[in-house]
Order: sequence, then C-alpha cells, then structure tokens
Amino acid sequence: MPVAKRMVELTQNASWIRKMFEEGLRLAAIHGAENVFDLSIGNPNVDPPEAFQEALQEAAADCRPGVHGYMPNAGYKEAREAVAEYLTRDQGVPVSGDNVVMTVGAGGALNVIFRTVMDPGDEAIVSKPYFVEYANYLDNHLAKLTPVASKPDFDLDLDAISAAINPATRVMLVNSPNNPTGRIYPLETLRALGELLERKSREIGRIIYLVSDEPYRRIVFDGNRVPPVFAAYPSTLIATSYSKELSLAGERIGYVAANPAAPGIETIMPGLILANRVLGYINAPALMQRVITRLQGVEVDVALYQRNRDLLYETLTGAGYDVFKPQGAFYMFPRSPIPDDMAFAKELLEQLVLVTPGSGFGTPGYFRIAFCVESRVVEAALPIFRQLGEKYFGGASA
Amino acid sequence: MPVAKRMVELTQNASWIRKMFEEGLRLAAIHGAENVFDLSIGNPNVDPPEAFQEALQEAAADCRPGVHGYMPNAGYKEAREAVAEYLTRDQGVPVSGDNVVMTVGAGGALNVIFRTVMDPGDEAIVSKPYFVEYANYLDNHLAKLTPVASKPDFDLDLDAISAAINPATRVMLVNSPNNPTGRIYPLETLRALGELLERKSREIGRIIYLVSDEPYRRIVFDGNRVPPVFAAYPSTLIATSYSKELSLAGERIGYVAANPAAPGIETIMPGLILANRVLGYINAPALMQRVITRLQGVEVDVALYQRNRDLLYETLTGAGYDVFKPQGAFYMFPRSPIPDDMAFAKELLEQLVLVTPGSGFGTPGYFRIAFCVESRVVEAALPIFRQLGEKYFGGASA
Repeated sequence: MPVAKRMVELTQNASWIRKMFEEGLRLAAIHGAENVFDLSIGNPNVDPPEAFQEALQEAAADCRPGVHGYMPNAGYKEAREAVAEYLTRDQGVPVSGDNVVMTVGAGGALNVIFRTVMDPGDEAIVSKPYFVEYANYLDNHLAKLTPVASKPDFDLDLDAISAAINPATRVMLVNSPNNPTGRIYPLETLRALGELLERKSREIGRIIYLVSDEPYRRIVFDGNRVPPVFAAYPSTLIATSYSKELSLAGERIGYVAANPAAPGIETIMPGLILANRVLGYINAPALMQRVITRLQGVEVDVALYQRNRDLLYETLTGAGYDVFKPQGAFYMFPRSPIPDDMAFAKELLEQLVLVTPGSGFGTPGYFRIAFCVESRVVEAALPIFRQLGEKYFGGASA
Repeated sequence: MPVAKRMVELTQNASWIRKMFEEGLRLAAIHGAENVFDLSIGNPNVDPPEAFQEALQEAAADCRPGVHGYMPNAGYKEAREAVAEYLTRDQGVPVSGDNVVMTVGAGGALNVIFRTVMDPGDEAIVSKPYFVEYANYLDNHLAKLTPVASKPDFDLDLDAISAAINPATRVMLVNSPNNPTGRIYPLETLRALGELLERKSREIGRIIYLVSDEPYRRIVFDGNRVPPVFAAYPSTLIATSYSKELSLAGERIGYVAANPAAPGIETIMPGLILANRVLGYINAPALMQRVITRLQGVEVDVALYQRNRDLLYETLTGAGYDVFKPQGAFYMFPRSPIPDDMAFAKELLEQLVLVTPGSGFGTPGYFRIAFCVESRVVEAALPIFRQLGEKYFGGASA
C-alpha cells in the first residue's frame, strides 16, 4: 500500500465541506463562476477591513534585519501582549502575554492544545452538530471524539454531556457562535457547564479541559455578545483565529490562550509552546503576527452577513423550512425537507446551489448554508430554496 | 497531571538548539546583543534577496477579493506550477504542479509526509548526526527514528543502513546539504542507496520511501551542486522550504514534491493534500505562496556564508580542531576538544559564544557552529575558539 493504513481510512471519510468546495470550483470552470451559487464553505469573501490593508502595507515595507526570521516558538512578545490586552478586556480577567501562543490559525491552535493535554485513547466530548474536522484533529493524536445530542434549540444539553463523561474524558469542546447552527451559548449554560466539569474532574481524578473554539466570536447579530469562557471555568483554553473576523482564512494566523487561573498553568504553557514547535508549525507566520498586533478588536463589516442571514431566514421560514435563527457566525442549519440530506444537497447541486449535508456535521437530516458571500449569490439561491420548499412542503409558505 | 504523559516525556527532551536560542536572547538582554556571539541556530540573518522585497510589496498591494482567503489545500495552482517548473529543471525529470503540495515550511512538509505514509510503529532510518527534531516529528505520528552511523567523512554508510532495515522500516530520511555537517551526498551514494531501497522494499514487501529534507539545497560552496534525488529512486518525496535560501524562516513557506515515477502516486498525492488539511495547517500561508511563485531559483547571496565558513575552517583547523569542511548549508560540526560536548559548549557559553552540543544531533563528542550570521559575529568568536584550541590541543596550531 503506498499510503499508511490510517491514511486510507481517513481518505474514505474525506470532508463533505471540502468536497463541495472542490465541486464548486469544478462547476465554476464549466458554467462560469457567476452562475454557481456556492454556499458550502466558510471562506469569507467580504474584504478584510481597511485597517488590515494599511497594517499589511506597513509590515511588508519593514526591511529591518530578521523581520522574516524565526522568533521564539510562542510568537513575538508584542503580538502576544496585544492579544492579552484584548483578552483582558474581552474576558474580564487579567490575561498576560505569557498566557498566549500565536498559532497557524485555529486548526493549528486546536492541534497544539490536543497534543499538549491529550494522550492516545483520551476522549473529547462535543455537542452535535459539530465541525467534522474536530474528529480528524483528535485522530492525529490518537484521541477520540464523542459527540452528544444538543437541545432542540441547539443549546448544550448538560445531561447528555454529564452522561458521556467517563475516566477517559479529557476535553469538553465548545464552539460558540456555533458552526453550523449560529448558536451562541448563554453565560448561564457556560457557568453550569463549568460547575459540571469541576465536579466531574474531581470524580474522575483528572482535569477535564474546556476547549473553546471561537473564530466567530466577533461575528454576531442583533447586538448579541459571546459570553467569556474564562469567567465560567478555570481550566479553559481558547483556540481561535483571525480567519473569519478579518477575512484572512488563507493566511493561517490565530492563537491559543490559556486561562491564567488554570491549575498547572506553569506546565501547560511550556507544553503548548513545545507542541507548536514539534507539530512542525514552529511559529505562526511572522508577517501576519506583526499585522494582527495592530488589529486587536478590529473586524470586518458584519452588516453584509446580517443582511444575508435576514434574507435567507425570511425566505426559508416563509417557504416552510424549520430553521434556527443564527445569532452569530455566518452559517444556518435548516432541517432538510426530506430525511436524506445528501439527496437534498444533490437536488440543490443540480440547480448549481452548493450547500453541505448535515451528515458532514454528524447530524443527518439537516443541511448547512454558509452565507459569507456576496448578497447577489444569496439572492440568486433564494428562488431555488423557495421552489424546493414549494415542492416538499406543498405551499406551506405565507 | 495538567499535561499529557506524552508531553511530559517530550518536555524532558526539549531541543538543545531551542534552549540555546532562548539562552542567547537572555544573555543578549543582560550583556547587550552586540556582545553575545550566537552561533547556535539556523536563523539566517542575511537579508532576503532584493527580488523578495519587490515580490512582497506587490503581493501586499494586491487587493483583489479573496486573495487572503482559503484556496485548495494543496495551494495555489500558480505556486504549484512554478515549483514544478523549477523542479523539472533541477531534478532533470518532468514534474507537474499536481506533484507538489505547498506547506507550512519544511517542518510542515515532513509532518505531512509522515502522516501520509507512516502508521504507528513504523520506523524511519536516518544517518548520524541528524537534526534532532526528526524524532519529534515522527513521534507525532507514533513512528520511530532509527539513527545509524555514518562514514568518517559523514557520507551515508550503506552497510549500516542495510543492517538497520527491517519489516517496520518505512522511510529512509536524508538531509543534504546536511545539518549539522554541511555534507552533500554524492550522486553515486544516492544511486547506491536507491538500489538498496529498491531491493529491500521487495524483500520486506512494502515500499520504503526515500524522504529528502533539503532546505539547504541552494546554499552550496565552491561550485558544488546537490545531486537530484528524483534521479536516484522512484519512491522519493522531497520536503523543503524557502526558510534558508530566501531567509524567510519565520514565514513558514515550503513544499512537498513527490517523484511522478513513484508507484502509487495517484494515492500518494491525495494523501499528502489531506494530511496537510487534517494536521491543521489547512494550507501554506496565502501571501507567501504568491511571493515565492515569482522567486523560483532565486536565493540569498551565499558569498557571506562562504566567507564565514572559510574564516572558521581556517581558524579551527589551524588551532588543532578536527572538522569536516562544509560543502553546503551554513553549519560546521567540529569534534569537541574534550569528550564531554556539553561541558565544552558551556565553556564557550561562559565567554558568550553560543554553539550547540553534538548530543543535540544524536552525536556526542562534537559541537555545531551555525555560521548564518554577520561576519563580525564569527570574527569575534574566532579568538575564543583559538584560545580553547590552545588550551586543549596545546599549541598544535600552525
């Protein structure tokens, strides 16, 4: 066999999201990009904010010796301190630069965390639906994902989480605002989760980490705010990136931040830094570290996303679809009109509308719409959603 | 325990190179950077070539929508094709963009390769001395490094390699020009290695890959040329980066290239691309992909490195040190005047000269000098090497 056995298995489960992304590129080449309505991937096509362009020009013009060379594996001191200052404001607890490690995006951040705290055989619990890549990231470290049910409104189901915790549980993974539902977990849910993890950690005699994957934190609607996880539980690690809030997904810049109150923080931080190195990331890209140092608290204009959300939500509910109204992020997770979500996605695909089947999020019977696209793409897709609603719900629309 | 058991073990083996790097920063803060002579890390302080600055400015000024967004996990088509064109010239066999995956540096490239072809328990053979991080990269995938002796002139010892091959052997890892010796493996050695791997693969009934880590390929002295590995063996994978040849170590840009003649190439490539995604790299940084697309075959001015090498080589041999004359890269690996290489490195450290003990390369009794620094740093260290030579070799100098 030319590739590893593990790789063969992995290939067979290749991501639906990426499949759709590649399918979109293929269809665009045939029908012209303007005739394909790709709502399948969280690749923001909103331009980065103007402040980014300025910061980038200046960073690129910087010719001081060594500016493109190695720096300590944790990242530039200035970048770490800028992030810490932002987190101190945002999380409401004092965070120092020593509690931050700059990473190759959130994908890098999560792998760094898993490598640091998880041994082979350890488990991470996640609430369904979930970003399917989590299972692959855990599998890198021979750890396992344990998906549990969420409540009907996609809030965390603490009873389900409690029932799933066992001596192998090492991580509770939350993602808020959630991909694919757009759900924000309220502070009282996080606090109750914190109490549960506190109690269960004592029971099993090992710390269960709360890992908060929050790249959509600054993409919120209707004046919503994402509650701070550091306030809810001491053993919390944040993984995030600037991919979504600054539209920089291809540049691979993000960070891990550890709650300074976490027991064992003095061994956690060297672990994270070492993991960043040995996993081959070495450090987050130098130039982008310098860029984001100056862009703390800056974000893209979310008005476009909110407009897309409103258009889609009104049309879909009007056409009879059952859908949770996203509070943040740029995804919507309607129930599929037919139980077979893959068949429904295929039906949309025939009309050149690309979505991702719920099966790609461990939750068949739904589909995900990514609305981080120009409004014209959303608008072009609306009649097709309406028409299929008509077909399956038989004129349930207003 | 706050961190994983695996992480505790890893921390205990933390890299000598990085320890020295951090120690250098600490000493620089105390004594002033100009009074510390840091010859411990391969962080080129030679400026990137002028063509890089131009390409970077232009890439940074590019405001087209989506230029900082995701692209296919393998990288931009243009970047892959530019690399393939270069490889076609350099390796003497036709390489297509489809055989290239852009990566987060060579560290990313090696991890992508190991994740793709190695299962837990598999082994990679490497010739001593070797870059110690290889063991950590393999350990990420629960694979194992098997170091074997090299010849006295640091060329590959094919008998030692042959004796080490067993049914678990999956990779033969070579690094030419070599870190830390500066050795280039001649074509006849690579050809003989290819024949050996061909025969042994048949014997054990599984392909043994030749993995060539070659970030120093374009840093060569005295008109040397690094022979093409693709010509030597079909199942060859190249891992490399622009870190050294363009002085961009912090920017994390490199690639994997697979020999188009490799059996099973049609499953190897999707495996590499998928590994790049699931390991959390997702893709090589977008901006730097666009930059290096325009810089194929460009490199820093190696005259400075050659001057440093000559200064060091003359002084060290003159002072009685036993040292192989580097043919490429920017490292030198003299025998330590006393058997205890750590004690010798400490002795240098007391005089503010930082080197890396040979133990950091699996080869005690030697030490590594990294001469990718300004000549004034090398010049300042010369009297100290001379003085310690005097002390231990008692005036063996000319």
